Amino acid sequence: MGEVDAGDTGSTRSGGRRGRRARQSGASDAFDQLAWGQPRMIYPPVPVVSQDELESIHQASLTVLEEMGVEFLNQEAKQILKEAGVDVPSDSDRIKFDRGLVEECLGKAPSEFTMHARNPQRNLQIGGNWIANCAVASAPNCADMDGGRRSGNQEDYRKFLKLGHMLNIVHMFGGYPVEPVDIHASIRHLDCLSDFVTLSDKVFHAYSLGKERNLDALEIVRIGRGITDAQLDAEPSLMTVINSNSPLRLDVPMLQGIIEMARRNQVVVLTPFTLAGAMAPVTIAGAVVQQNAEALAGLVFTQTVREGAPFVYGGFTSNVDMKSGAPAFGTPEAMQAAMLGGQLARRYGLPYRSSNVCAANAVDAQAAYESVFSLWGAVMGGVNIVKHGAGWMEGGLHASFEKMILDADLLQMVACFLKPLEVSDDTMALDSIREVGPGGHYFGTAHTQARYKSAFYSPILSDWRNFESWVDAGRPEAFGKANQVFKQLLTQYEAPPLDAAIAEELETFVAKRKEEGGAPTDF
Amino acid sequence: MGEVDAGDTGSTRSGGRRGRRARQSGASDAFDQLAWGQPRMIYPPVPVVSQDELESIHQASLTVLEEMGVEFLNQEAKQILKEAGVDVPSDSDRIKFDRGLVEECLGKAPSEFTMHARNPQRNLQIGGNWIANCAVASAPNCADMDGGRRSGNQEDYRKFLKLGHMLNIVHMFGGYPVEPVDIHASIRHLDCLSDFVTLSDKVFHAYSLGKERNLDALEIVRIGRGITDAQLDAEPSLMTVINSNSPLRLDVPMLQGIIEMARRNQVVVLTPFTLAGAMAPVTIAGAVVQQNAEALAGLVFTQTVREGAPFVYGGFTSNVDMKSGAPAFGTPEAMQAAMLGGQLARRYGLPYRSSNVCAANAVDAQAAYESVFSLWGAVMGGVNIVKHGAGWMEGGLHASFEKMILDADLLQMVACFLKPLEVSDDTMALDSIREVGPGGHYFGTAHTQARYKSAFYSPILSDWRNFESWVDAGRPEAFGKANQVFKQLLTQYEAPPLDAAIAEELETFVAKRKEEGGAPTDF
Repeated sequence: MGEVDAGDTGSTRSGGRRGRRARQSGASDAFDQLAWGQPRMIYPPVPVVSQDELESIHQASLTVLEEMGVEFLNQEAKQILKEAGVDVPSDSDRIKFDRGLVEECLGKAPSEFTMHARNPQRNLQIGGNWIANCAVASAPNCADMDGGRRSGNQEDYRKFLKLGHMLNIVHMFGGYPVEPVDIHASIRHLDCLSDFVTLSDKVFHAYSLGKERNLDALEIVRIGRGITDAQLDAEPSLMTVINSNSPLRLDVPMLQGIIEMARRNQVVVLTPFTLAGAMAPVTIAGAVVQQNAEALAGLVFTQTVREGAPFVYGGFTSNVDMKSGAPAFGTPEAMQAAMLGGQLARRYGLPYRSSNVCAANAVDAQAAYESVFSLWGAVMGGVNIVKHGAGWMEGGLHASFEKMILDADLLQMVACFLKPLEVSDDTMALDSIREVGPGGHYFGTAHTQARYKSAFYSPILSDWRNFESWVDAGRPEAFGKANQVFKQLLTQYEAPPLDAAIAEELETFVAKRKEEGGAPTDF
Repeated sequence: MGEVDAGDTGSTRSGGRRGRRARQSGASDAFDQLAWGQPRMIYPPVPVVSQDELESIHQASLTVLEEMGVEFLNQEAKQILKEAGVDVPSDSDRIKFDRGLVEECLGKAPSEFTMHARNPQRNLQIGGNWIANCAVASAPNCADMDGGRRSGNQEDYRKFLKLGHMLNIVHMFGGYPVEPVDIHASIRHLDCLSDFVTLSDKVFHAYSLGKERNLDALEIVRIGRGITDAQLDAEPSLMTVINSNSPLRLDVPMLQGIIEMARRNQVVVLTPFTLAGAMAPVTIAGAVVQQNAEALAGLVFTQTVREGAPFVYGGFTSNVDMKSGAPAFGTPEAMQAAMLGGQLARRYGLPYRSSNVCAANAVDAQAAYESVFSLWGAVMGGVNIVKHGAGWMEGGLHASFEKMILDADLLQMVACFLKPLEVSDDTMALDSIREVGPGGHYFGTAHTQARYKSAFYSPILSDWRNFESWVDAGRPEAFGKANQVFKQLLTQYEAPPLDAAIAEELETFVAKRKEEGGAPTDF
């Protein structure tokens, strides 16, 4: 993983080679951005409960699995479990898992693995103390300052892909940033997945919405990487998020997704949708007991399909607003749940997925504080995959172009916060302190001059001008600046190189599958 | 400290008794607020460097003190040091402190103490894992949506005091929220300090701007509490922040402040003003070495004045924008510095002061993210006193009424995040999970019904309405809501009860001191 160096303190102008070319052609760059690289959680993750309490939650989850069980709504899945010796009743979908069986499955999935992108320089390390940020995913609507809020469409979808590709701090796509509903559902996945390959070279995600879509995605990722089936089976390259239908249910497409993805050694991120007070108990401990039971049921099934298949423990427990039933994000309770989820994932030796989410309708102070609180809980909880890392608004109901830039700034700040604070004779600067002496200043010292360009993070949005200059500039706020930045960034986009043979094979495959009618839409 | 119960999960309508009375009189309340109480840092503070690295920083600071020394610009201070056996040169203000002397002083100041308010229910525990939030302090300007940004004045000063008094999550006043420059500087402290006593019953702060002001403040706090000099000497009741004139200098009013305050066993919060790249080395390690040297010089002097006098280790290290020289706040570097300061304070067994600060001109996303990042660094660094907890904007150049409400929301969220996550049979809710079963929902369960009112934090500002309702309501943003809240809160203000004899004694003292001409203005 030498190419992913979180210790790199350098920054590049946006777009790297592309950015330089853009400058040469006269366009000015939108902002400085950090060099490509995954941050690492260099501090000890913060435990939110004691070891004994953690064990109580683990045991309570095992009790849920053993006594109440989880509904598996798919025949093939039940058959797989039955063949593995699990007691599958003939008259019910309710599968009860012996606690011994669950304990046996712990340790089978890898605690860390590499996800392969079509550009090896975009490979990601998942697990350990590595962090990978995803772009926002699955929003039905999108919005920007100019066009307001609107239904998702292909044009906006592609713009998000281009931005996500250009932002170094966005490491992967965790789904469609916005759902392009102007493309028919039967072929939407074909267009969207091939766009992932052609418009970016980063790792991406496939929705589990019927096995045909999983199979198409597996073929598209194989083509994109230009590898054989055998190599794909050996190298995790595609991710799917499996949301259990909380409480305690896994439906047909989710189970088919696990089967098709795990069978090919691809990455299952099992994320129970446990909003406390709605689909889970109103107490955070109770909601996480349920989350944990559902995640462990998914783990057992995944490892039954294929022992050693990569599995990510997903935590999405938040609370609802008990006055309206609306989901809330970035709350104190969600922070605790995020940290508790991380603590459980570490207990199981599994990579951990959390999110950067908010419930705000506007890119205002609320959007910012809910997002930073989300990141606080996720990062201090030891997150490995930050889903919805950049662009999520309104509880997931719209993806925002401006919020994507705001979040890129937040994620870059987190990355810098996680760079080791270097303590050495050089950085402790005794000579410089001696040189300056009482009452002096450090602006002109050699120590400062040698470091000032890269000493501090240079933010995308923060306006640090004095009040008078800021007033003269028209009192710009973060939302407006973000609007300028995303549009400027889009003008600098260039598609990453793609081998012509791969492009042709991809095109042929997509055309053939479209001719065949795509995938069923009755999922 | 039984009266300060951070475990209290209840919330009260704003203003408690006053709030109820306001409701009876027909006024509606501005928002739910948490009951009075200090949060506690229940998680282990996060170390930002290793023990060895921490020791290197400590030793480097001792080297600064031993080899370079600190300028003491006050004769009386030098005399005190001389009498204590410190080598004070006759031809220089530069005092060099033997490292053995510094080590000797460690452990003399209390690691935890009680600060006494005139209302004992507002007493605060400083140190240990207790957190106390201060209102914004020392801004020359103030602003709100209606009147824009303006110079500080007495009317606005009093409005901030009223708000700070009413907000339960604001535990103390760390200085004048805004500087009322319409009051002559010679008597300003008399009006401002007596306002602290009459408009609130919380702990407050005295500026060290010439010894006369310290002496007046000591007398005002004694009168306000209705106690003897001897009792005041036994009970820390007043705080002063001493900002060293970084690098490595303590000026006349700062040293006089330490002398007068420590002599009376009152609280010295020594906070070096070490902006990396300007008044301190451009590296965070170097800036903190210097911060630490200056703080330790203050500690040694304080303990020389009076062994055992309460001393708080203040950390304010942030960076400047190297392009403009403007101070930056809420940066990744400032977060690391905040955590490193806390690590040093814990090494010395001293209470730790950090801040909730931002550099934003507008109460926008930037104001919010810089503040939450500040709080993240401070809280995970083990902060005990959060200065500028509510209302700080523009790098301290203006106090904002709306930001005070926004920050109150942020501080309440932090307080809830720090409430212990209860893990018990009751909260793990196995019976409820069993009752609901696969595919059900929890809205109507007995477990939910018994808890839904207090289960989750109810935010002041967050707008969780769906998009359509939010559009119908005119697309309100956090800034506008905060404007409504602060104005509504002010209408509900009632002064806390004050014994008539105390009020008269205070009035007489202030009148006498005004007749005497107040305090010199050539500080």
